[in-house]
Amino acid sequence: MDNPGYRTGSFDGLHHPSDDDDDEMVDIAGATLDFSTTDDVPPLTTPMAAGVNGNGPTKLVDPLEDPVPGVGTYEDFNTIDWVREKSKDRDRHREITSKSRQSTVALLHSVSDAFSGWLLMLLVGLMSGALAGGIDISAHWLTDMKEGVCLNGFWFNHEHCCWTSNETTFQERDRCPQWKSWAELITGATEGPFAYIVNYLMYIVWALLFSFLAVTLVRAFAPYACGSGIPEIKTILSGFIIRGYLGKWTLIIKTITLVLAVSSGLSLGKEGPLVHVACCCANILCHLFTKYRKNEAKRREVLSAAAAVGVSVAFGAPIGGVLFSLEEVSYYFPLKTLWRSFFAALVAAFTLRSINPFGNSRLVLFYVEFHAPWHLLELAPFILLGIFGGLWGALFIRANIAWCRRRKSTRLGHYPIIEVLVVAGFTALLSYPNSYTRMSGAELISELFNDCSLLDSSQLCGYQQVKTGVGNTLADRPAGPGLYTALWQLALALVFKMMITVVTFGMKVPSGLFIPSMAVGAIAGRLLGVGMEQLAYYNHDWIIFKGWCSPGADCITPGLYAMVGAAACLGGVTRMTVSLVVIMFELTGGLEYIVPLMAATMTSKWVADAFGREGIYEAHIRLNGYPFLEPKEEFEHNSLAVDVMRPRRADPALAVLTQEGMTVGEVESLVESTHYSGFPVVVSQESQRLVGFVLRRDLLISIDNARQRQEGVVSASQVVFTEHAPSQAPDAPPPLRLRGILDLSPFTVTDHTPMDITVDIFRKLGLRQCLVTHNGRLLGIITKKDILKHMAQIANRDPDSILFN
Amino acid sequence: MDNPGYRTGSFDGLHHPSDDDDDEMVDIAGATLDFSTTDDVPPLTTPMAAGVNGNGPTKLVDPLEDPVPGVGTYEDFNTIDWVREKSKDRDRHREITSKSRQSTVALLHSVSDAFSGWLLMLLVGLMSGALAGGIDISAHWLTDMKEGVCLNGFWFNHEHCCWTSNETTFQERDRCPQWKSWAELITGATEGPFAYIVNYLMYIVWALLFSFLAVTLVRAFAPYACGSGIPEIKTILSGFIIRGYLGKWTLIIKTITLVLAVSSGLSLGKEGPLVHVACCCANILCHLFTKYRKNEAKRREVLSAAAAVGVSVAFGAPIGGVLFSLEEVSYYFPLKTLWRSFFAALVAAFTLRSINPFGNSRLVLFYVEFHAPWHLLELAPFILLGIFGGLWGALFIRANIAWCRRRKSTRLGHYPIIEVLVVAGFTALLSYPNSYTRMSGAELISELFNDCSLLDSSQLCGYQQVKTGVGNTLADRPAGPGLYTALWQLALALVFKMMITVVTFGMKVPSGLFIPSMAVGAIAGRLLGVGMEQLAYYNHDWIIFKGWCSPGADCITPGLYAMVGAAACLGGVTRMTVSLVVIMFELTGGLEYIVPLMAATMTSKWVADAFGREGIYEAHIRLNGYPFLEPKEEFEHNSLAVDVMRPRRADPALAVLTQEGMTVGEVESLVESTHYSGFPVVVSQESQRLVGFVLRRDLLISIDNARQRQEGVVSASQVVFTEHAPSQAPDAPPPLRLRGILDLSPFTVTDHTPMDITVDIFRKLGLRQCLVTHNGRLLGIITKKDILKHMAQIANRDPDSILFN
Repeated sequence: MDNPGYRTGSFDGLHHPSDDDDDEMVDIAGATLDFSTTDDVPPLTTPMAAGVNGNGPTKLVDPLEDPVPGVGTYEDFNTIDWVREKSKDRDRHREITSKSRQSTVALLHSVSDAFSGWLLMLLVGLMSGALAGGIDISAHWLTDMKEGVCLNGFWFNHEHCCWTSNETTFQERDRCPQWKSWAELITGATEGPFAYIVNYLMYIVWALLFSFLAVTLVRAFAPYACGSGIPEIKTILSGFIIRGYLGKWTLIIKTITLVLAVSSGLSLGKEGPLVHVACCCANILCHLFTKYRKNEAKRREVLSAAAAVGVSVAFGAPIGGVLFSLEEVSYYFPLKTLWRSFFAALVAAFTLRSINPFGNSRLVLFYVEFHAPWHLLELAPFILLGIFGGLWGALFIRANIAWCRRRKSTRLGHYPIIEVLVVAGFTALLSYPNSYTRMSGAELISELFNDCSLLDSSQLCGYQQVKTGVGNTLADRPAGPGLYTALWQLALALVFKMMITVVTFGMKVPSGLFIPSMAVGAIAGRLLGVGMEQLAYYNHDWIIFKGWCSPGADCITPGLYAMVGAAACLGGVTRMTVSLVVIMFELTGGLEYIVPLMAATMTSKWVADAFGREGIYEAHIRLNGYPFLEPKEEFEHNSLAVDVMRPRRADPALAVLTQEGMTVGEVESLVESTHYSGFPVVVSQESQRLVGFVLRRDLLISIDNARQRQEGVVSASQVVFTEHAPSQAPDAPPPLRLRGILDLSPFTVTDHTPMDITVDIFRKLGLRQCLVTHNGRLLGIITKKDILKHMAQIANRDPDSILFN
Repeated sequence: MDNPGYRTGSFDGLHHPSDDDDDEMVDIAGATLDFSTTDDVPPLTTPMAAGVNGNGPTKLVDPLEDPVPGVGTYEDFNTIDWVREKSKDRDRHREITSKSRQSTVALLHSVSDAFSGWLLMLLVGLMSGALAGGIDISAHWLTDMKEGVCLNGFWFNHEHCCWTSNETTFQERDRCPQWKSWAELITGATEGPFAYIVNYLMYIVWALLFSFLAVTLVRAFAPYACGSGIPEIKTILSGFIIRGYLGKWTLIIKTITLVLAVSSGLSLGKEGPLVHVACCCANILCHLFTKYRKNEAKRREVLSAAAAVGVSVAFGAPIGGVLFSLEEVSYYFPLKTLWRSFFAALVAAFTLRSINPFGNSRLVLFYVEFHAPWHLLELAPFILLGIFGGLWGALFIRANIAWCRRRKSTRLGHYPIIEVLVVAGFTALLSYPNSYTRMSGAELISELFNDCSLLDSSQLCGYQQVKTGVGNTLADRPAGPGLYTALWQLALALVFKMMITVVTFGMKVPSGLFIPSMAVGAIAGRLLGVGMEQLAYYNHDWIIFKGWCSPGADCITPGLYAMVGAAACLGGVTRMTVSLVVIMFELTGGLEYIVPLMAATMTSKWVADAFGREGIYEAHIRLNGYPFLEPKEEFEHNSLAVDVMRPRRADPALAVLTQEGMTVGEVESLVESTHYSGFPVVVSQESQRLVGFVLRRDLLISIDNARQRQEGVVSASQVVFTEHAPSQAPDAPPPLRLRGILDLSPFTVTDHTPMDITVDIFRKLGLRQCLVTHNGRLLGIITKKDILKHMAQIANRDPDSILFN
């Protein structure tokens, strides 16, 4: 039995264009997108043809035996064919397995091939963990740089600088003589309005400098390094090609500019971009292993695992990371990948721990120590926080998308550097006076999550000391002036963060959304928590507090409210569910608070979904017009395949090739007169019975190759897709046999197939196109883009917003 | 545009045969299986036809408008069509959504429909949690019953009986005067050989009684209640119908006999059967909600969640339970289900905690308190444990399957009651003298996991008290005589457990495998741990111990070794990976030990996989011949669809119907002369162009129905599948229009489609059959059973071992 066409030898000797080729500087999220008319595939690039020549122009190639270089690869900004890729990999694996029985070397090769996945995961975990540690340390140092410098060496951050100091009392540890604020260094003044103003100015200057560096580096070297990267990674994982998006330049620039952007004090986090960084590491490391370098589907398995690694190092939550990858980012996630992702996430988390960037050998970003119980009645405020989170999430998505659309469509988008400088300056100007906005987002959240201990000197713990009979009790104290000040500052910080995050996310610097969203929720939660606490203190006799919140009892934990609020807001913005709860569970390490977290997250998701089903990442995918077929959403409309397929009723008939009888010239002119990515091959024009499907790219490469290397192939040569060449006149030029590039098993559906089933098939099998038949006759074709356009039309959106194929 | 046939109105008015119909007592795992020749669907049952009659025989039904009752349902022991079920549910949902805009009542209905899933999950969680609590308490009580009775009331177990006692010293708590051993009660003697013999005999008598009750109850009322149930649940979730397997009788009998079987001291656990119990709860509760009662696909979503609930209550590990369901049992697991499963698992876990069956308000079964660090060098013994676990797993599966096959094929299978009694008697006889086999499996594991505290009086902590300068150190002591005795007993217990479990699993009582496997591993691990500890004590100067295991240091924790060993053995038997590690992580509540656990689990899986890819559940599925298409295993062979399809080359041509021109009589005789489950409909016999596919069952029901209710339908009437009835002679009888039952969107592949792709399509879309075409002409058909037979053939197994369709 003959092997079907595209499967024979599709895995060796392919010239695979390097994936980290950063020369194509397409400004993907920006206003300067210039391939918005992409029903057509760009013409074949010359390097490809040159590569073919390089193999030796005199060799006679039979396309049935030896694959032509370039056949089976993809253009940039195109959708891959999952079925073909997976089939290629199975062929590869089968070949290795069958060879392994022949010799010891082949057996070793087979074993090393089987373990290469694990080795790759180990490397990805190590590299990502190390990079995350480096980013943490550098960001910490640069953030402190905005406030002052260490005399022992400028490379020490504030904390490290004071470690060697002799003043070891708890209060004074922050103020060691080696650490000089800028005012002290420049003017010698440590206190007073003058010193304050100098420090203020220096803060703004550093913020502007860092953000300027970040945005110019991104503009100059790697435009793909901006944003959080998660929308693009979701698209890539769903089977799209964006060359250079996960390349080495993107990695280097994103790592550097991420540190700068975080240090500049902008309202953004480093957690989302860490996912991008981990994916870049994985993509680069894939080049070490043939199995992953040459197969787009296998590589996406690794990238899915890398997304888990990113979250694992961001929060120190390996299980949460794996579930995040499963729930939020991945498209094709076989169980084998689950296990490997978990392994990689663990390796990364332990690498990060051994680097110990937080100096406390803790794995997690916000370690929560309290274990106070919560009461069932408290579910009411928790659900309230859920509602707040949902509303904020829905509002944020709308405002942010409106702002980003404005950036794309107006002149605003032409001045990204000025935009970043204005926002950074404005942020620094407004955030310095308020201590809760001056500190970094992660510090703020950490402080809000913390419960007050007796020795705590922070303003948030500014309770009045009440001498009761019970002794040195911590619980149940009235708020003092310190706390009131803190509440005011927090309220201002809340309003400020809510506004500035909308304009910050989407600028041309690396920017994550996890920390700002969590900060908004944590502030709201802490405010509500302190409010509840004081309400209970002054109204112990109210019926709702009776029984569980008597005087002196430690009944309300404001830190828990902050935690619940943070989860609610993050859930409202990203629409994460299980992974969010598990990440928060891993932060606290106990099942105690899982019910409050779950209640808030569920409420938040329901409330936010009522205003729009899309999370922020899906909204950005749609904004950018990526061909992403949402796996979670059900297709609700009851249209049929015949309503979606091309050609439409009024259109000219489908362009098809016949399996014999067409000449090279005819095929070429047909291909040139249309812009389709592929052509069905039929038995004859009259019968329209389907034989197979051939891709435009493969067809052009093969004809080009044959004209140059095969003797006698001219425009008058017949193109033959059948197994056996037909008999022809003796003086006719030799036929060009192209069965080798013909996909003999194209997917078909009938014209009566409901679109919900068709969409399901596209999603589950990862198709790029599907042919439509009626009673055994070819009728039309449906591509992924057609489906997305149809879905946009149903949702009353512009179908032309889907840009890519 | 007309709706395609089977989709119009497929969701209302269907007579759906009750799923907990226990009348059909098919002995599914037994030797008396008598439908092994099932290429044919059993003839239509009379009740179905009676149901049709019941609706009123005079009403004139147009099959295009009103669905015939029974069309769209499935026979017992048949595979469901996932695509059709999901499509039905989408139609239902679409109808409700479109109606909801018309009236407030409809809107409320739509809202209640949307939340019914959550309500159902809540109920499943509550019911399963409550049942698990009841099972725990009863099993505890009955287990103690074997040793003695409480004078305060026979319904107290040993621990509860002594709670009220005044003797509260730690040592004496076990020996309160209210609790009488059987010897004490019968003869008055508390000590001495006579009392021992009386107790011994009573122990055996109770064990025999409990096991006799268990096996007779199962035989008499619910044969499906035996075994662990997980293989069958996996099969059901993959889309198979076994009526009554999850019915109310199975639930009641399984709950009762599970308690009896566990109490009888047999080497089995209750954890696996709890999954079956939870699934029964879910299936019964599904009947409360139309959405789930009427749709096989939706119901399987709930069952997947119930599997998570089962593990959640078994181990107190909600996240682990969800991952277990995802990794091990489920087939179709959309992300929406993930979130709901998590919710249900949490509800169940907290219900169980509020029942508090262990009396310590702990959620988890084995709570581990030690937090001693481990050293990197210890990975070597951990990996050794992994190798042991893998070898044991592979060995166990082979031995158990060989034994079960023997039971099926020899006379052994005819005497299940005697078999159970012999095994129970033998187990009791051998296990009483050894305290580690006498205690229940869960207690044993709990004791092995525990670390020795200073006050610990158990034999396992029988170290010599060494007075060193360091003080009352616990660590680094030489073993005393108590510990040596314990080690011997443990070694004997290990051998005994390894042998007896092989013959126990698969008997006709409810029996889980988690606890026995974990016990084997925990014993092996503890033995190795104590060995390492003593090695280190006597050889502190060895190079491998230097630096981390100096004298007096607490360097080796035998309890950790037991834990790692338990994970390794469970992994070897079930081949679980992520879920296993996460369950163990939830038991310990810290990330510290996740690396040892992962190392052991990975090693164990690799070693076990080297001897055979199947876990115990897959092996039992294959033993029983269920049509289960393993989603994890890749199809490696390079055959094509044409090699697998029917008819084979020598066979007569495929039986097809034409879309017009056949009479009712011709159709009936064609259907009767074959045993196929469905028939393709073509344009004409000559063209073989495919129009659609019609199921045998739907065809027979419709013709039957039409003959009885539609006037003028006789054998000479034309059967018409086209949209418009063809013109015919004026005196001809009116045609029978059957477009309504025609599936106009059957799945097709070409004859050149590689089987790996075809298998992928079957798996991912949940197909039951697929038609094969060549150049647009119908060529043959592939069913799920054909694929499974083909796979069996490739693996050199008997293709006829696949029993069902």
